[in-house]
Amino acid sequence: MIDASLIADENAARRPELDRDYETLGERLARRGLDIDTLTARAMAFGVAVPSWGVGTGGTRFARFPGPGEPRNVFDKLDDCGVIHQLTAATPTVSLHIPWDRASPADLSAKADQLGLGFDAMNSNTFQDSPGQPLSYKFGSLSHTDRAVREQAVAHNIDCIEIGRAIGSKALTIWIGDGSNFPGQSHFVRQFDRYLDSARAIYAALPDDWKLFTEHKMYEPAFYSTVVQDWGTNYLIARELGDKAHCLVDLGHHAPNVNIEMIVARLIRFGKLAGFHFNDSKYGDDDLDAGSIDPYRLFLVFNELVDAEGTPGFAPAYMIDQSHNVTDPIESLIASATEVQRAFVQALLVDRAALSAHQEANDALMATTTLKVGFRTDVEPILAMARLRKSAAVDPIAAYRRSGYRTRIATERPAITGTGGGIV
Amino acid sequence: MIDASLIADENAARRPELDRDYETLGERLARRGLDIDTLTARAMAFGVAVPSWGVGTGGTRFARFPGPGEPRNVFDKLDDCGVIHQLTAATPTVSLHIPWDRASPADLSAKADQLGLGFDAMNSNTFQDSPGQPLSYKFGSLSHTDRAVREQAVAHNIDCIEIGRAIGSKALTIWIGDGSNFPGQSHFVRQFDRYLDSARAIYAALPDDWKLFTEHKMYEPAFYSTVVQDWGTNYLIARELGDKAHCLVDLGHHAPNVNIEMIVARLIRFGKLAGFHFNDSKYGDDDLDAGSIDPYRLFLVFNELVDAEGTPGFAPAYMIDQSHNVTDPIESLIASATEVQRAFVQALLVDRAALSAHQEANDALMATTTLKVGFRTDVEPILAMARLRKSAAVDPIAAYRRSGYRTRIATERPAITGTGGGIV
Amino acid sequence: MIDASLIADENAARRPELDRDYETLGERLARRGLDIDTLTARAMAFGVAVPSWGVGTGGTRFARFPGPGEPRNVFDKLDDCGVIHQLTAATPTVSLHIPWDRASPADLSAKADQLGLGFDAMNSNTFQDSPGQPLSYKFGSLSHTDRAVREQAVAHNIDCIEIGRAIGSKALTIWIGDGSNFPGQSHFVRQFDRYLDSARAIYAALPDDWKLFTEHKMYEPAFYSTVVQDWGTNYLIARELGDKAHCLVDLGHHAPNVNIEMIVARLIRFGKLAGFHFNDSKYGDDDLDAGSIDPYRLFLVFNELVDAEGTPGFAPAYMIDQSHNVTDPIESLIASATEVQRAFVQALLVDRAALSAHQEANDALMATTTLKVGFRTDVEPILAMARLRKSAAVDPIAAYRRSGYRTRIATERPAITGTGGGIV
Amino acid sequence: MIDASLIADENAARRPELDRDYETLGERLARRGLDIDTLTARAMAFGVAVPSWGVGTGGTRFARFPGPGEPRNVFDKLDDCGVIHQLTAATPTVSLHIPWDRASPADLSAKADQLGLGFDAMNSNTFQDSPGQPLSYKFGSLSHTDRAVREQAVAHNIDCIEIGRAIGSKALTIWIGDGSNFPGQSHFVRQFDRYLDSARAIYAALPDDWKLFTEHKMYEPAFYSTVVQDWGTNYLIARELGDKAHCLVDLGHHAPNVNIEMIVARLIRFGKLAGFHFNDSKYGDDDLDAGSIDPYRLFLVFNELVDAEGTPGFAPAYMIDQSHNVTDPIESLIASATEVQRAFVQALLVDRAALSAHQEANDALMATTTLKVGFRTDVEPILAMARLRKSAAVDPIAAYRRSGYRTRIATERPAITGTGGGIV
Repeated sequence: MIDASLIADENAARRPELDRDYETLGERLARRGLDIDTLTARAMAFGVAVPSWGVGTGGTRFARFPGPGEPRNVFDKLDDCGVIHQLTAATPTVSLHIPWDRASPADLSAKADQLGLGFDAMNSNTFQDSPGQPLSYKFGSLSHTDRAVREQAVAHNIDCIEIGRAIGSKALTIWIGDGSNFPGQSHFVRQFDRYLDSARAIYAALPDDWKLFTEHKMYEPAFYSTVVQDWGTNYLIARELGDKAHCLVDLGHHAPNVNIEMIVARLIRFGKLAGFHFNDSKYGDDDLDAGSIDPYRLFLVFNELVDAEGTPGFAPAYMIDQSHNVTDPIESLIASATEVQRAFVQALLVDRAALSAHQEANDALMATTTLKVGFRTDVEPILAMARLRKSAAVDPIAAYRRSGYRTRIATERPAITGTGGGIV
Repeated sequence: MIDASLIADENAARRPELDRDYETLGERLARRGLDIDTLTARAMAFGVAVPSWGVGTGGTRFARFPGPGEPRNVFDKLDDCGVIHQLTAATPTVSLHIPWDRASPADLSAKADQLGLGFDAMNSNTFQDSPGQPLSYKFGSLSHTDRAVREQAVAHNIDCIEIGRAIGSKALTIWIGDGSNFPGQSHFVRQFDRYLDSARAIYAALPDDWKLFTEHKMYEPAFYSTVVQDWGTNYLIARELGDKAHCLVDLGHHAPNVNIEMIVARLIRFGKLAGFHFNDSKYGDDDLDAGSIDPYRLFLVFNELVDAEGTPGFAPAYMIDQSHNVTDPIESLIASATEVQRAFVQALLVDRAALSAHQEANDALMATTTLKVGFRTDVEPILAMARLRKSAAVDPIAAYRRSGYRTRIATERPAITGTGGGIV
Repeated sequence: MIDASLIADENAARRPELDRDYETLGERLARRGLDIDTLTARAMAFGVAVPSWGVGTGGTRFARFPGPGEPRNVFDKLDDCGVIHQLTAATPTVSLHIPWDRASPADLSAKADQLGLGFDAMNSNTFQDSPGQPLSYKFGSLSHTDRAVREQAVAHNIDCIEIGRAIGSKALTIWIGDGSNFPGQSHFVRQFDRYLDSARAIYAALPDDWKLFTEHKMYEPAFYSTVVQDWGTNYLIARELGDKAHCLVDLGHHAPNVNIEMIVARLIRFGKLAGFHFNDSKYGDDDLDAGSIDPYRLFLVFNELVDAEGTPGFAPAYMIDQSHNVTDPIESLIASATEVQRAFVQALLVDRAALSAHQEANDALMATTTLKVGFRTDVEPILAMARLRKSAAVDPIAAYRRSGYRTRIATERPAITGTGGGIV
Repeated sequence: MIDASLIADENAARRPELDRDYETLGERLARRGLDIDTLTARAMAFGVAVPSWGVGTGGTRFARFPGPGEPRNVFDKLDDCGVIHQLTAATPTVSLHIPWDRASPADLSAKADQLGLGFDAMNSNTFQDSPGQPLSYKFGSLSHTDRAVREQAVAHNIDCIEIGRAIGSKALTIWIGDGSNFPGQSHFVRQFDRYLDSARAIYAALPDDWKLFTEHKMYEPAFYSTVVQDWGTNYLIARELGDKAHCLVDLGHHAPNVNIEMIVARLIRFGKLAGFHFNDSKYGDDDLDAGSIDPYRLFLVFNELVDAEGTPGFAPAYMIDQSHNVTDPIESLIASATEVQRAFVQALLVDRAALSAHQEANDALMATTTLKVGFRTDVEPILAMARLRKSAAVDPIAAYRRSGYRTRIATERPAITGTGGGIV
């Protein structure tokens, strides 16, 4: 972890300007009837999970270009996650991926405790073959035509639940790549029924206080059809399985132009919103940094979430899920957690009574302007003050760079020489 | 209508070549274990409804360029539909749109009887304001914030049911343009609940032997959000309403790249497929002629439909719904009905036992090839023989052109002088 | 126009808060090395043209829902444009569309002088047929297969130039809907050559100090192919024609997901950027209000424009081009002009020396953060102060609403009863 | 290679049916004024290149699932290509990728001669880092900010030319992944200028009788911007470089909904069409088998190519470029070469005089029907007869499966154990 005194020094240097900006922002917000300290408290209570794979450098099918100090195993990954949380105070949990992160639960828990981290949803990867795995997932996992392959995949999911129980997780996320590359390759109805059967078997193994998150995606790795291709299919799955099953929304998993915030509203309305995999995209499942391409879309999603606060049973899980191909993954995760938190706080600024009145009156211009006033407000002083009050860094990227953490771990962790594609 | 002797003369001239092609195609199909006369009988039994508005020239928001002999009213429209069915024997029914086609039910029935036509689903247009209409649909109809507007729209739908009952229709299709053009303009959850309330009121008025078809569309006329934006929302509506409610699929109403045939399979699986609005598109809801842009996609849809034959309760309604901006609408509807019928017959050719075996074995190449063999087969001789055997035209476009029908009605029906946009 | 004292009263009431916010923003900007008064001066010098058709209520092919006080002719339109400029001081010019706005040039000039307005580029509409027009544009205009139709369209364009000369315009914008709805309908190469021939004839008639702007669009009203479908074809046209020909970029005229700001950079690099038709879109050519859907995209476009300042010959024309279907068009144009101006000022805030250094160092995270710092800054105080210093309204929408202008003109201008589609 | 007698036996068994189908197809074509033997001769003369990497199993960033008998090196790849050509007689050349296929030119030529193969365009891969490579392409190659990296990439391209010269290739294809993942990461203008400088250096090293093919792609591996993102930029490059530079069109490298056949027509019109990378796609650069998703689109491309026959200088290069993730790559390449050839022959069937007349008359319905008649014709007997007459297999997939080639090489070539992503 980073030396606390370094952070304190950094913060001390930035404190006067922050105090001044916080004061003047507070003054402006007060005029709108908003109390800045209440907002800062909300920001302080906000958390988003980091995916363990995200602290490694990602790649494409064409190549992966590793950076220095790549994590060698889940414990290195947790170290990196610890730094992110230390600097942002916004990422209190980590989402593990099995089999990549398989380790002794006791060791995992001990390491997490030491770093002040918890564990969010478990992820069961059945989109790759692992060394020693008896049966291949080349033609699918939970929906494979061969019962034995399906059983292997079900068993792997149950295994993930067991690991998760031991380390304090309360949810299992299932995303599969099952689908087809050619018209006719798969029988859509039978394939979906096989998926449902497998999912029911996993659901049956779910502890009472757990949730099951299923995740849809339009395409990739399958390029003609995907079994859980959109929120409509995802909803059908969650409904078939039962009350503990919910639909996870990854912002990059939709068709071009789709209105994602409306999907969020539909899932909220029917009690089936699991939560999010945050990231951003311009073309496909680009897995770019959250808020980097279309920050207003991220805000509009949080507008729905803030609007739904207080709805019975409404408790979405927030996770980042993105690939860092050209940046230091720690920096990207710091920046992305901040962007997610920023959208949340901006959505808190919306005058919902006024918005509602404009909506009822069909005053489209004032309704959209009411939203924009929230989005346009630069809430950086609130985010920085929230970090300061939690002993994190006022400017986390600057503190991280000054800390020399990357240089240090680069000497401890040997360089990765393989340069092939893949997200491993 | 067209003089039957003209059709007979045309057919007689084409008969020798047709007989020869039918014979050699029959020979090739027999080698695959298929009986051509059985296929011809299936083609003869196939029908697709024509939309009344489709026989007028369509337009865009930029302009409408009328053609000669535009129908002046629903009776002119029925005359044109009669010609299409006379020449193709494939369009036995017409789908009316109210208020455009409002007329005395007795007169409508008499006219249809005279032409040998029936009536398919009724369509309730609440996306325009009509002269004399008390309240405007500018900000929505069934989901409007104002209860009075919603009640007006519900009453209009119930009125459509009444007209339909009187003329022998058995279904109501609801497509609305309700949505928003700005983020924030509408509250997604409340707007959807208002839609559900209105739809329930209409559903309650549905006769026992009727079905309710709800239709989704991604966008247009609303450009930021649409209340019934995709099949997921459409499914939720059909499920909320009850067993008589089903989801209508218009091929042009989806996001770019969406796999429509898989949506069809999902709706079949959950017993909620209403049927189709056939057309084709390259960009948006282009309403181009069915099969004109991507004939293989149309085939893949029929592959699902033929596959589902025999499923209990499976009885999809087939309707064309497209805009003819640059062609003679009668010709486009003739050609499109033939394309739809062609895709159906090609789907009948697929060796489903072989396909199923390849699917089970994950032999993607042979599975897709098995489909392609059906699509690649030129079934025109089957379609032509089906028409011949029903006393329709072997070459309907040629017969239509030779008949001089368009020239004749152009003298009877005054030219339309307005050149504004709009589909009226 | 609106009573100046009403604006002055409104401004006086808002002055204390504006002064305070301007002061604290200036303080924050000074820390970044930016002088707020210099930025305000840049904002004051910024102008964007309003399209004459935009002050009427727009519609879709499904319907048009008129509002109260619709302009009856070009002089009513100019009155409305005058109000927009009076309140924003950001829309000094109007872009006319012929034949819609045909009137005596002397009367047009007199009216504009009276309102303090000038005329931007002329637009030659050949996508509709006008009453009395000898030949139809149903199958195209400048690229029609019939030479006589092409000559008619060329003559119309030359007529637009003549009108424009008389009223002080310096550019002609050509956008045509020519294309096809069916594969095979048009021969791509011959159709394009016909377009080039026609365009050359228009170019030959261009005064020495004029520019020709050609505008591309992916689709609509043609739904299979469009002659000037993208910037590649647009560039070829501009290059073939000569130095006075440039490519106009409408933000809504591109394929899904296209990176528009890169197209802007390419056209700048090759000296062919004409300027913009600003609007926003989520699906197709939605013609929504500028900045209403993706404000960051608008900022990224201005980032390229500010970056290119100083490039020899760089003088892009800024025009709004959007359809107001559900708002008061005057309000939407006020808000949109402000959004465009906002993006411009935010782009001025970017630390270009730092950005350039990050780019050279491949420091992707700091490069994108450097952009975001500009975008995140709430520059509303600068925009408001710019308006105040030009005697426009600090809050133009509020002043407009208080003025009762719409109510007044609604009594003077009779209600439009036609409710068909179309943008007329 | 496969035993010639096995092929002969297979063909003998299929001969009677083929002869019969060829005869009746010939009869039908004769009625349209077409001579089947002339068409068969055209089919026999048709060839499309196979990419060396395509005979290995492809993957995605998530995983690669190897099949049995994966080629270990370029000589194994050439063996597989030899089998494809032996069975189809339609793939006479192979397109090499350097550094993957680096080997002694003499050995390459000897091996190719032995297999009856030639070499098509060389491909210079600079989208991956290779072991021992001094400088990384993580942040670009030909457009990198660091001159040394650009020089390394230029040198690699020149090296590819040298290898190509030695083995009889006549073209270099450049596709690079250079771009950016974040707004602001790259300066668009400077980045493009660096690309042009590098490309000029490569162009200068091109032998007189060589061509340079540059290839555009919308996105991936870069996910915010790509340097050569579309045909517009590609055209600018080819024009800047000179007469030997042309634009390569990969069917999967465009934005959603783009009309590719029109791009082909534009490049033909301006003398800059290099040729094709054939494949198919539903979502992005899916690299699916040619003709597997939208066979009509492939036909429409060939409609442009056949239409352009006889244009001076028109000599496009045809190459397959696709990834085989779930099929035996040899089978997919056999099927894809046949699909490409099929589209070519179908395009030959179009009655161009009639089409042209319909186009001139704006008879959209008959124009599109004229195209469809070509597409609808099942030309399989022509393709099979072309193969038979060149001693290839009437049914190449059946012959391949019966030959046991895959089983044999699976015993000779050790299984690949790595299961990571990537196309290596």
